[in-house]
Amino acid sequence: MKPSRRKFIHSALWTTAGISVIGPSQIAWSKANTVIKARSIWDIPTPALLIDREAMERNLRKMKSFLSATNAGLRPHTKTHKSPAIAKMQMDYGAVGVCAAKVSEAEVMLAGGLQDILITSPIVTADKIKRVMALASQSDRIRLVVDRQENVRDLNEAAKAAGVDLSVMIDLRLGWIRTGIDHGKPAMDLLKAIDRSSNLRFYGIQAYAGPVQHVRGFDHRKEASEKALAPAQQLKKEIMKAGYQEPILSVGGTGTYSIDAALEGVTDIQAGSYLFMDVDYLMIGGKAGALYTDFEPSLYVLSTAISQPQPGSITIDAGGKSFSKDKKPQLKDITGVEYSFAGDEHGILKLTDPSKEILVGDKLLLLISHCDPTINLYDNYHVYAGEEVQEVWPVAGRGKSQ
Amino acid sequence: MKPSRRKFIHSALWTTAGISVIGPSQIAWSKANTVIKARSIWDIPTPALLIDREAMERNLRKMKSFLSATNAGLRPHTKTHKSPAIAKMQMDYGAVGVCAAKVSEAEVMLAGGLQDILITSPIVTADKIKRVMALASQSDRIRLVVDRQENVRDLNEAAKAAGVDLSVMIDLRLGWIRTGIDHGKPAMDLLKAIDRSSNLRFYGIQAYAGPVQHVRGFDHRKEASEKALAPAQQLKKEIMKAGYQEPILSVGGTGTYSIDAALEGVTDIQAGSYLFMDVDYLMIGGKAGALYTDFEPSLYVLSTAISQPQPGSITIDAGGKSFSKDKKPQLKDITGVEYSFAGDEHGILKLTDPSKEILVGDKLLLLISHCDPTINLYDNYHVYAGEEVQEVWPVAGRGKSQ
Repeated sequence: MKPSRRKFIHSALWTTAGISVIGPSQIAWSKANTVIKARSIWDIPTPALLIDREAMERNLRKMKSFLSATNAGLRPHTKTHKSPAIAKMQMDYGAVGVCAAKVSEAEVMLAGGLQDILITSPIVTADKIKRVMALASQSDRIRLVVDRQENVRDLNEAAKAAGVDLSVMIDLRLGWIRTGIDHGKPAMDLLKAIDRSSNLRFYGIQAYAGPVQHVRGFDHRKEASEKALAPAQQLKKEIMKAGYQEPILSVGGTGTYSIDAALEGVTDIQAGSYLFMDVDYLMIGGKAGALYTDFEPSLYVLSTAISQPQPGSITIDAGGKSFSKDKKPQLKDITGVEYSFAGDEHGILKLTDPSKEILVGDKLLLLISHCDPTINLYDNYHVYAGEEVQEVWPVAGRGKSQ
Repeated sequence: MKPSRRKFIHSALWTTAGISVIGPSQIAWSKANTVIKARSIWDIPTPALLIDREAMERNLRKMKSFLSATNAGLRPHTKTHKSPAIAKMQMDYGAVGVCAAKVSEAEVMLAGGLQDILITSPIVTADKIKRVMALASQSDRIRLVVDRQENVRDLNEAAKAAGVDLSVMIDLRLGWIRTGIDHGKPAMDLLKAIDRSSNLRFYGIQAYAGPVQHVRGFDHRKEASEKALAPAQQLKKEIMKAGYQEPILSVGGTGTYSIDAALEGVTDIQAGSYLFMDVDYLMIGGKAGALYTDFEPSLYVLSTAISQPQPGSITIDAGGKSFSKDKKPQLKDITGVEYSFAGDEHGILKLTDPSKEILVGDKLLLLISHCDPTINLYDNYHVYAGEEVQEVWPVAGRGKSQ
């Protein structure tokens, strides 16, 4: 928190000696990440999304360093950050490729200079398949997942018509019922169908155990992930036994990266949230204790206290349009304060036993509740070091859920 | 639901007789609402946000017709739709002005041609106050709310420096603790401070009882709203007794419009959701029964079924980045199906007793969970009649929470 905003108000606006307040239209940024006029984070119009650059870079280094001692690489999921600029940093830190959740997200990544892009959901309709073929004609490392025979046929016909070879993975169902085909005969039959297809190349297995990422307690999570992934390891063995080249086995996320990277056959990890962390992931617990501290928080929302109708609470300008509502955000650096959503435009801070006084006009940093859907609410990241804004990066894939 | 998407896939893409699939870059729309190439709603890339134009217009007409028989006007809240095009339609249907939640939203409305704009949250920081003065120099009907003495002083100094007169309302606290000043002496003292300010004009009272909008059961809601608004009616009387001109009294929303419009002294209603309705508002109950049917649903998300790992459920491409997570969406026109969020990118439909078969590749319309925060996830509305897309309107204020 920057204290004494009242002083700021009276120095900035109505005296000539004040700080120049820059409106959003004056922020100079291009489509790529571009250095802007240096200015304090406390001058950013709120609510705003901020990246602590050094903390994020420590997370990048930590993941690289950890995985370099295993057989697995990183195939980071860009659905988290939706930023080609960040995806390129991940590639610089040794990623083997990136993931995208949807076709429109993959389009943003390819346009932003990424080449090796795995789309992690089945693409089944004519319009989307056509868009995938347009991507595949620009990069030979666009990779799809399939979980049904009909889709193999549709993709092959489209690839043939477009004159491209398409890299295809089997999406394996792991106990839950979101997407994926069953292991054993259904998966092996799907592999044969891919193998028979003139314009499809079999690339490997995707086995994403979504709910397992959030199992609380490291030991419980380890047990759950090992159990969930056993069919994927088995399928990989069957495939190699059938004479195929070693397929990739792409699994996991931020909650299980260290567990999964140690498993036989796993070639890459689809982590995303490790960059930023959030209240949700902090709470799943780590090897060492109740908080998951393998990575550190690097993403915040800056908000302003705008009203105090009664002592004991204070109202800020960030609500359900500034934070994903599935979890509650937490204040950075101030304890004894609890956030509640107060509609879409506001939050109320209950001042139970605040470690610092909070006044109307103060700006506050909050650790975000759930990173992926919160980021998807913002047009830009303000990237800072110390208290200085260094760059503004567009959330180029914001809203690209198609 | 449009049935037999499998047929569509095989007719559209790989035969020359197929429908032409138009990519999003080919959709012709300008910054204003512009007629696009007519095409079927079933060809829109999913997930997408759709307005049933005729249903929305019936809601516009119904609100106008209802209020014309009362003493209250409509001051619709644009935080719901974030579209100057829709705000102008509301003005055409007799609105007395519009509301905006934040400065950046008001900027979008003014740029879009609206003139009478009430910003419904206190504006307390130097940067935002400066932006308000820029708005006030373009329209003499920019109206702010205040809930503290210091803010009156700050606004007056800024208005003086900018050479504008600013229209100001007292934001009254109504039992809950989000924003607002207490009735009685605190409010009257605030009025006197406004009255003493060289560049502020007192315009009236804002008394928004947010939680009351969602009280279930019409009679309970009526009782709650009448109780909540009593201090606002009392304050208005005191103000007039003190010799001031009759102030406006701006209250209510979609849940209480008919209750509040009948109350003595109420001059305008800040409804927003009445345009679209949502599952949340349907459930609050109406005069006639368990569902609130004063207005009809006119807003939908179009989604595609993309995977069916097991019988009994099917996975669609719309999750927490396509619907606000605070409530569950519901299928339009199909019963016996229950939606669950399956992460940010997907939903799972449990096929308990579906009234129509749903196959992978099918496109489905879903009634949205909660309109305001869901709309804020999308860049555009697809406006349709029958099954034909008539126009694409930008959600110009999307993300404008500053």
